Amino acid sequence: MLDPEEVALNVANGRVLAEEVRSDRDVPPFTNSAMDGYAVRAADTMGASELAPVRLAVLGEIRAGLAPPTTVRPATALRIMTGAVMPEGADAVVRVEDTAERDDQVEVRAAVTAGLSVRRAGTDIRRGDVIATAGRVVTPGLIGVIASVGRRTIACIRRPRVLLLTTGDELRDAGEALGPGQITNTNRYTLRAALDDVGAEVLDVGVARDTRADLVERLRSAQNADLVVSTGGVSMGAYDLVRALIEDREAVDFWQVALRPGKPLLVGSVEGRPLIGLPGNPVSALVGVELFVRPAVLKMQGRTDYERPRLSAITEDRLVNPPHLEQYFRGIAHREGDRILVRLTGDQGSHVLRSMADANCLIVVPQGTSEIAAGEAVAIIPLGPIG
Amino acid sequence: MLDPEEVALNVANGRVLAEEVRSDRDVPPFTNSAMDGYAVRAADTMGASELAPVRLAVLGEIRAGLAPPTTVRPATALRIMTGAVMPEGADAVVRVEDTAERDDQVEVRAAVTAGLSVRRAGTDIRRGDVIATAGRVVTPGLIGVIASVGRRTIACIRRPRVLLLTTGDELRDAGEALGPGQITNTNRYTLRAALDDVGAEVLDVGVARDTRADLVERLRSAQNADLVVSTGGVSMGAYDLVRALIEDREAVDFWQVALRPGKPLLVGSVEGRPLIGLPGNPVSALVGVELFVRPAVLKMQGRTDYERPRLSAITEDRLVNPPHLEQYFRGIAHREGDRILVRLTGDQGSHVLRSMADANCLIVVPQGTSEIAAGEAVAIIPLGPIG
Repeated sequence: MLDPEEVALNVANGRVLAEEVRSDRDVPPFTNSAMDGYAVRAADTMGASELAPVRLAVLGEIRAGLAPPTTVRPATALRIMTGAVMPEGADAVVRVEDTAERDDQVEVRAAVTAGLSVRRAGTDIRRGDVIATAGRVVTPGLIGVIASVGRRTIACIRRPRVLLLTTGDELRDAGEALGPGQITNTNRYTLRAALDDVGAEVLDVGVARDTRADLVERLRSAQNADLVVSTGGVSMGAYDLVRALIEDREAVDFWQVALRPGKPLLVGSVEGRPLIGLPGNPVSALVGVELFVRPAVLKMQGRTDYERPRLSAITEDRLVNPPHLEQYFRGIAHREGDRILVRLTGDQGSHVLRSMADANCLIVVPQGTSEIAAGEAVAIIPLGPIG
Repeated sequence: MLDPEEVALNVANGRVLAEEVRSDRDVPPFTNSAMDGYAVRAADTMGASELAPVRLAVLGEIRAGLAPPTTVRPATALRIMTGAVMPEGADAVVRVEDTAERDDQVEVRAAVTAGLSVRRAGTDIRRGDVIATAGRVVTPGLIGVIASVGRRTIACIRRPRVLLLTTGDELRDAGEALGPGQITNTNRYTLRAALDDVGAEVLDVGVARDTRADLVERLRSAQNADLVVSTGGVSMGAYDLVRALIEDREAVDFWQVALRPGKPLLVGSVEGRPLIGLPGNPVSALVGVELFVRPAVLKMQGRTDYERPRLSAITEDRLVNPPHLEQYFRGIAHREGDRILVRLTGDQGSHVLRSMADANCLIVVPQGTSEIAAGEAVAIIPLGPIG
């Protein structure tokens, strides 16, 4: 988990609290009316009804934000607005719908009991109450509660700075013309967006060409980052320079994971910072973000919900798996009554980014399972709401 | 739905496409290797195995981003990296794990069939293919697909500009000292955050004091907005100036909705712009955002998924409802096996913002229902993921 920093309430939405927030006051700060109406002594309204209204003298009114002009004595009332201070002497509010006012007199057409439509000071929050614990995700509602206890800033866990490095001589930016053998560097765009989605501050150091010197130069900025995410250069080939560099520095934690897509994934460190070396295939890279980078970035921010919930669904396609791997198919799930049905997004090749773009979930086939027939239950990881 | 605008791909995440995107090219743009290994003629590997390897002359190598140095003739191979251009003559790739190279010769220890580990040009996307239709929400994966067809910007629906006006003499900003009868203006903070969450550009015109002149002055900026959202001033009271103003201008579409919390809600227009007048109670205001403002803001951006999916849950609390109203209780839902259980977040008074801050869902009790017993099924609207 990273250090805390002080954040203004109006930009704290979605951040993670780094402090326990206690109230320095009662909320509401004073006893007030829950309705527009008349502040009365409940006893004065006994027996009042549509047919037998009670008449009370109106002594004046209390608007929100102002002090009451006087107290309520027997057989009198003060006109009162929602949220205005309850005057001394009154113990209930008759709502305006149950009254009619004429010539400084109000006709009360319904009896009220003591306490009706009155919000007592401190009934929401008491001075000293803990209103939020460290680790909570800040929501619009929580921002309001924190504002209500007098705060205008709060300590939140700092957002992780993630160095993003894409590698490969063949890569060109979006919109650049492609020469022979060249392709567009989609990872630079997809990963930037996926990192934005989880609250990272992305430090994009561009594309490392396939020389160790360029790689080393660009990775120097890792000193300014909390996490390094790279794509490409982690496979078996002679030009897999990311792996070679981290191996030569004896900084590999592990390399190769028994999953598909994304098997060549490397986890290690560079310049003393953790590094997740994703494969260069665009689907492998995005699945690697989902399974490794997203949880890491969320956890660094103090989030405890860094694992997405898994749901049970019925697969409409037959799923075949080499049993030594855990496989993540890209799926489209939809609800049908109480069930969720899921189908594949076409060609599941790890270079077919379309399969990821069209997906709203990953379908998990565990290690040891070689086949799941159509109609059987599977676990899915929703990537967004499932309609 | 608002007008489109051209948006750079690296900031388009979460926006809504305003155009049909077609590919100007085949993807992949050229036939390439899916593996690090050797480009060969499949026929040359016939019968190759661990015990009876086949030897081929290595003519050179093909790195990603470069053109092949030569063609592959019978009994020869080219070393090839993942993503590199398949050379003429070769029709398959033997992965590096199934080979050993020495003295310009490669020992192939597994037979391959034609097409193995080869990605043919255009197998992901064909030139002219529609890769995304107008109305799609832009995701990291979709950004990648759009980049891969040569685009660096896309037409997206403009983000709605929402004028946010809070009203009331009693309101003070967060951190300001409170005088008698004054409260903190939590709505200004909660609504700002809730509007941010749905992609609105918030134009905060501050707090209107309880005079018509101030209200009129601040609402003049509505001309620059697509939607006006106000809080307070829509109830039955004598100082409910928002309602009075819109009524006097004969611009009320409807006032009062049979729901709790949030009954006094007003919908109309001001300066020719739609206005949603939310009640001043902080819970009523946030529930009003959820039920009325959020769908409006999403729909303006071209989103078709502006209604959140409703799920079925088992209530752990008894829910009592005046049957002439539809009621939205604030709840905490959690999964237990295949079921979702939901309980109330304490005091459900419409001023108790804590009930909203602690909630991860709304519990819907429909009109006509006066009671739901503990253990019965209810519909819930998740406000975020349910763990």
